[in-house]
Amino acid sequence: MIICTTIFEVKEAVAEYRRGDQDGIVGFVPTMGFLHEGHASLMRRSRAECGLTVLSIFVNPLQFGPNEDFDRYPRNAERDIELASKEQVDIVFMPAVREMYPKPVKTTVLVSDLTDRLCGASRPGHFDGVGTVVSKLFHIVAPDKAYFGLKDAQQVAVIAKMTEDLNFPVEIVPCETVREGDGLALSSRNVYLNEDERAQAVVLYRALNMASELSQSESMTPANLRDKLNQYIKEDAPLSNIDYIQVLGYPDLAELDSRTPLKELRDSWIVAMAVKFGSTRLIDNRLFPGEEVASHV
Amino acid sequence: MIICTTIFEVKEAVAEYRRGDQDGIVGFVPTMGFLHEGHASLMRRSRAECGLTVLSIFVNPLQFGPNEDFDRYPRNAERDIELASKEQVDIVFMPAVREMYPKPVKTTVLVSDLTDRLCGASRPGHFDGVGTVVSKLFHIVAPDKAYFGLKDAQQVAVIAKMTEDLNFPVEIVPCETVREGDGLALSSRNVYLNEDERAQAVVLYRALNMASELSQSESMTPANLRDKLNQYIKEDAPLSNIDYIQVLGYPDLAELDSRTPLKELRDSWIVAMAVKFGSTRLIDNRLFPGEEVASHV
Repeated sequence: MIICTTIFEVKEAVAEYRRGDQDGIVGFVPTMGFLHEGHASLMRRSRAECGLTVLSIFVNPLQFGPNEDFDRYPRNAERDIELASKEQVDIVFMPAVREMYPKPVKTTVLVSDLTDRLCGASRPGHFDGVGTVVSKLFHIVAPDKAYFGLKDAQQVAVIAKMTEDLNFPVEIVPCETVREGDGLALSSRNVYLNEDERAQAVVLYRALNMASELSQSESMTPANLRDKLNQYIKEDAPLSNIDYIQVLGYPDLAELDSRTPLKELRDSWIVAMAVKFGSTRLIDNRLFPGEEVASHV
Repeated sequence: MIICTTIFEVKEAVAEYRRGDQDGIVGFVPTMGFLHEGHASLMRRSRAECGLTVLSIFVNPLQFGPNEDFDRYPRNAERDIELASKEQVDIVFMPAVREMYPKPVKTTVLVSDLTDRLCGASRPGHFDGVGTVVSKLFHIVAPDKAYFGLKDAQQVAVIAKMTEDLNFPVEIVPCETVREGDGLALSSRNVYLNEDERAQAVVLYRALNMASELSQSESMTPANLRDKLNQYIKEDAPLSNIDYIQVLGYPDLAELDSRTPLKELRDSWIVAMAVKFGSTRLIDNRLFPGEEVASHV
């Protein structure tokens, strides 16, 4: 496994592979590190589909707001490298911030509409930072396929739209959310939770299951569903503080007529939620229609 | 010469070349067509430096304001193809608007600061459209080098900054402005000028020569220079209507202290101007320090 800290090195390493195999496919798994089984599943998918797998580990300051957790975002380079090695990743790219941003950045890749709701509303500028760093990484790594977890469904939608709009020669591969045994979606931020919060955090998964059931009802509308989930989470998890619960079209994240029964919707839609436990903000979602096939650890 | 109208075709044609020559260099000349000797000089430079030269002809609606000349922008595909063929261009890419924008675009590549002055101030949104279409074209053509005329010096600065910020794997090659015998910078928009306007339009070139002379004076400041050019253009060309005359740092387009003598500036700077004749808006500029080495037709 090659570990690169500079842009020059990783470009060279990928070019070397391409020189050796002109038809080879390069897979890319961009992460912020503190890797868990969710990331590992992306690496395995890339390994299965591509001749070369590149993993990036970069906590991108541009996508954190001034009052967010950039400084305290969990990091553990040593353990990350161990996990990547175990998953037989070919190249790990872990640049310092000054390598990615040697000068003040004046360029922003901005996706409108999709980014002004859900996490975009709660985290202004967040998706501008995501679009910009993903553009940079795509140009540096030049992958054929890039793997993203659906836990960040809005991120997947934003990156897919950006890729389509700007003709990036990259296929975006959305991958199923990986969950703990009790259903909590894996997230690097889960380590922030204390014992009580951790126990109650499973409420997000339970609420999504409830959404699956409720959506079977002929008369259930987006507004009605949202209200029921809101009430359920508040009652079931007293430590929770709801940031948002939304029912939107997917992947365009369009507003749905809140009084039209979900059963009458022809297109796909998403239930997405962000819930805080103390200062830890957790997100989860489910796409409809579609059976729940999430893999569990 | 291969003429492509679809993204698929041009990608295939470039890939075909790369399969044949792994070390081959692809040069790219993006244009809005209605080609003139200025464009031809870019094609020749690419031909001299690259194994494959791709020319794109696309009048990009995104970079025109609602009251600008998108609809009446001059077009002549037949003559353009003839000129490209004469210059031995390898691939011409001339997509329809619906090929480049099949769906509503939600993604914008935005370069801040550099775009809020000069033409960016007169043409709000113009450079967002430029950044977006150039990003698309770079992804589609995947060139190693891209050639841009310095007549649009702000455009060159914006694209160079975008390329650097986003790590596009493309070298931006700025090329000297080509001029008519009397000094008027070549532009597709020159055809709009009537006889009297055409005669007076040479005032831009004369003003730049005057700027070169005035800048030799020990005490000449940006403010002073601007005033003198302003006065000269107004007096010399009664049909002119000055949009802007600016003296800025280059390529960062930073404001200069208007009272510091130009002789004391250590970095490079630009005199840039936009002047209207009737409804035709002409631009020209000169970079300092540097001898005038503009090529003439």
